[in-house]
Amino acid sequence: MTGAGSMDGSPQSSLGGEIRGVDAVTGEALEPAFRAATLAEVDAACARAEAAFDRFRATDPQTRARLLEAIAENLVADGEAIVARAMRESGLPRPRLEGELARTANQLRLFAGVVRDGDYLDLRVDPALPDRKPAPRPDLRLRNVPLGPVAVFGASNFPLAFSVAGGDTASALAAGCPVVAKAHNAHPGTSDLAGRAIAKAVEALGLPDGVFALLFDADVAVGQALVAHPAIRAVGFTGSRRGGLALAAIAQARPEPIPVYAEMSAVNPVLLLPAALAARGREIAPAFVAALTLGAGQFCTNPGVVVAIEGAALDGFLEVAAGALAAAPAATMLTSGIHGAYCAGVAALEGHADIARVAQGQAPAARQAQAALFATTAEAFLRDPHLQAEVFGAAGLVVRCRDAEELRAVVASLEGQLTIAVHADADDYPLAAALLPQLERKAGRIVFNGFGTGVEVGHAMVHGGPFPATSDGRFTSVGSLAIRRFLRPVSYQDLPEPLRPPGLRAQPEAGFPRRTDGQP
Amino acid sequence: MTGAGSMDGSPQSSLGGEIRGVDAVTGEALEPAFRAATLAEVDAACARAEAAFDRFRATDPQTRARLLEAIAENLVADGEAIVARAMRESGLPRPRLEGELARTANQLRLFAGVVRDGDYLDLRVDPALPDRKPAPRPDLRLRNVPLGPVAVFGASNFPLAFSVAGGDTASALAAGCPVVAKAHNAHPGTSDLAGRAIAKAVEALGLPDGVFALLFDADVAVGQALVAHPAIRAVGFTGSRRGGLALAAIAQARPEPIPVYAEMSAVNPVLLLPAALAARGREIAPAFVAALTLGAGQFCTNPGVVVAIEGAALDGFLEVAAGALAAAPAATMLTSGIHGAYCAGVAALEGHADIARVAQGQAPAARQAQAALFATTAEAFLRDPHLQAEVFGAAGLVVRCRDAEELRAVVASLEGQLTIAVHADADDYPLAAALLPQLERKAGRIVFNGFGTGVEVGHAMVHGGPFPATSDGRFTSVGSLAIRRFLRPVSYQDLPEPLRPPGLRAQPEAGFPRRTDGQP
Repeated sequence: MTGAGSMDGSPQSSLGGEIRGVDAVTGEALEPAFRAATLAEVDAACARAEAAFDRFRATDPQTRARLLEAIAENLVADGEAIVARAMRESGLPRPRLEGELARTANQLRLFAGVVRDGDYLDLRVDPALPDRKPAPRPDLRLRNVPLGPVAVFGASNFPLAFSVAGGDTASALAAGCPVVAKAHNAHPGTSDLAGRAIAKAVEALGLPDGVFALLFDADVAVGQALVAHPAIRAVGFTGSRRGGLALAAIAQARPEPIPVYAEMSAVNPVLLLPAALAARGREIAPAFVAALTLGAGQFCTNPGVVVAIEGAALDGFLEVAAGALAAAPAATMLTSGIHGAYCAGVAALEGHADIARVAQGQAPAARQAQAALFATTAEAFLRDPHLQAEVFGAAGLVVRCRDAEELRAVVASLEGQLTIAVHADADDYPLAAALLPQLERKAGRIVFNGFGTGVEVGHAMVHGGPFPATSDGRFTSVGSLAIRRFLRPVSYQDLPEPLRPPGLRAQPEAGFPRRTDGQP
Repeated sequence: MTGAGSMDGSPQSSLGGEIRGVDAVTGEALEPAFRAATLAEVDAACARAEAAFDRFRATDPQTRARLLEAIAENLVADGEAIVARAMRESGLPRPRLEGELARTANQLRLFAGVVRDGDYLDLRVDPALPDRKPAPRPDLRLRNVPLGPVAVFGASNFPLAFSVAGGDTASALAAGCPVVAKAHNAHPGTSDLAGRAIAKAVEALGLPDGVFALLFDADVAVGQALVAHPAIRAVGFTGSRRGGLALAAIAQARPEPIPVYAEMSAVNPVLLLPAALAARGREIAPAFVAALTLGAGQFCTNPGVVVAIEGAALDGFLEVAAGALAAAPAATMLTSGIHGAYCAGVAALEGHADIARVAQGQAPAARQAQAALFATTAEAFLRDPHLQAEVFGAAGLVVRCRDAEELRAVVASLEGQLTIAVHADADDYPLAAALLPQLERKAGRIVFNGFGTGVEVGHAMVHGGPFPATSDGRFTSVGSLAIRRFLRPVSYQDLPEPLRPPGLRAQPEAGFPRRTDGQP
């Protein structure tokens, strides 16, 4: 780590000073310092990305797949240094970060497979019908093309899987879009190492260096300039609602607006239906507390709200949950800012007239967060929309409903969510079936008899959901479908054979599946 | 035609007075009067759509396909009355409207096929892997679900195919979204007849009447209220840039923003590459004039700008084009407003210091438009971005470039377009190949050796394009892919078999194609 904006060797002056990683446990500033990019450097990085775009998107599938695999290999090869640095910067434990590194590498390999499959191109041929009456039909051929350079804003809470070399970068590169990443200040050193793994792979494959750049930002000026830059054609973001909405507003105000895929916030409600609660409430409770407190509750999919009908079964659930929570160790949070926001959020719940504290976790040391569980009534929850606001961290709120009707009213009042979990036994299926259409409108993923905390990287995953969980509920930021965010369709009419791109030529080609007249 | 807001029998008072169709040729107001919806009626129509949504989206594919086919049948059965009324309101000739009616019916049938195919659901199953290490994989199943009620704003220029029963309505209904349509004031009587064809089909299939509503609007208040209504989840619009951007701004300002698919404006540039121009310029010219003047130039895909390198070949093209244009009859435009805007646009070109008139069409009678062809230099075109503004109607502008480099600069300067046409012979292919990456970034459809005027309704069509051609270049408003505008993916984790929707159950089902672990 040199301390320079890693992908740019040109002379530069600081826009907003220097950035240092901070030891999450001790608060100690770490070496080296990273310099915030100047506006000229933002411009230069975007111009290089733009200049690289046509060459990069024209690469054959093998080259692009190899790039993604090479990045994965580089991350794994440098894994010990990356994990060690991420541990210091995030305060997350080694097993979690080792797992996250493996996930990040696997995610890159998944997109290598997506590129080789060719399905993402959505190739279509409607052959000419020269004898059709009353008018002949022209030859029409369609493929998806990449949008152009993508700005990626990583998340604080997944310094690897949702950051510089995470899913946004992997899916954008797979689509053929150069990436300009903005390092998160919660882990600049980790970002730098991940950025180097990418840049090294870009170089090894002989691709233009504009395919990837990494910028540091002391505050928000670099990020704002990036989203406003004419060369940038889409934005991937994981973070706070405030941050996501600010970037979306900049993107909308451009002369030519661009899509912003911001994954912002969710309380990921958990519905405990009556039969399951009665039969298994005391088993669900410790599993809930484990999901609530996992990683100090710093998951986008952390379950923040539980909804259930009051009675002995719910009391039993709460009793076991309170016991489990009381045993939950205090945990170091990612940054002092996140720690401060968590403490303020918990204090607000403590001070709320309609809310009672059920339990709290073990007492925290400095910079640590204490888990907390609260309860309120459905009436209060329906009255005060602020109770739906996410408290990022291991704080949960149980909403007691008088009956199934009130439970349905609470569900109907929910904002858009990343996930909703339903605990249901066979006797609950009629109620679950009645709730499902509503749940489908509220969440990107519906989890039965579990919690949404884990997010599989696969083909049937949706990590997304209606606003305000994300800025665009039509897409997912995790799984193979994430590539669709960075593509748009182009139709070619009567394109001469010598000019046709791979997969749209007269003869079908391996690795380029296509539909003819709509049929595979 | 009763004169009432056709789909609402409830008592109503007028918000903005009455609307009458106008005879496009004579300017005569037509019977009957239609009453603008009140805000209470907008609210009621949206509430009925919302109430109908869950039942409508749960219909089986056959029912939804039959609905679309029944609408087509009803339109054809009432075809003579519809065409006669559309002729009076639009001034378009009988063969064109008969063709448009057939197109509209075929479009509905295409979407019936899309629903039966089931491919649009994008069904995916990633089966559980209980023995996977380090953690088991849950069962994940994904399908697309409809967004909810859709507001449809038809276009003035296609009173059937892009209006009340047009592609937006067909694709929204196919997706499972109820539709609340706003009648275009250029053809309220035609809208009413089309609305009746839909309502009759909804009733015949025993579906809730909230599946479809038609509202009239004296000005813009009803349309604005519709886009702002919480029950409306997406908007389809075809019309002016000003109108589209106004609706998009309303949609963005909602507490929960919704997608607006606005197809707004384009000049659909035509590039005449040197070899083709030299070999065939005199043949291309009359075809260009025919495309320019077709339907009084009132096509979204009307070719408004020609770009070519100056010289004898271009002079030959212009000579033939001027002759053909001089013979072009004057034509009645859709409305007096459109006619006025066309005359003002032509006058602005006439008065521009850098623009010369090449030819004009035959002299117009009252309310008719005179075709016109102008020429300018690439230098002037690059200097004045206003010259890229669409003059809706049969006015064209030829941009003379000094050389291929200047032609490329003109292409690089273009705004987003619905179509770009390239006339190229074999000797032009190197230049065409060099231009293609740029063209792909500028347009939704690239047409070789023809004009984009005709828009096939098929599987490989894109009627869309980068901003400002549309508000969202990731989608198409024509062809089977148009259904994607009204869908979003939902993932189900460990959903019990009795609760799984069709197509996601353990046993695959006919009509519900799906991918397992990403493979078909």
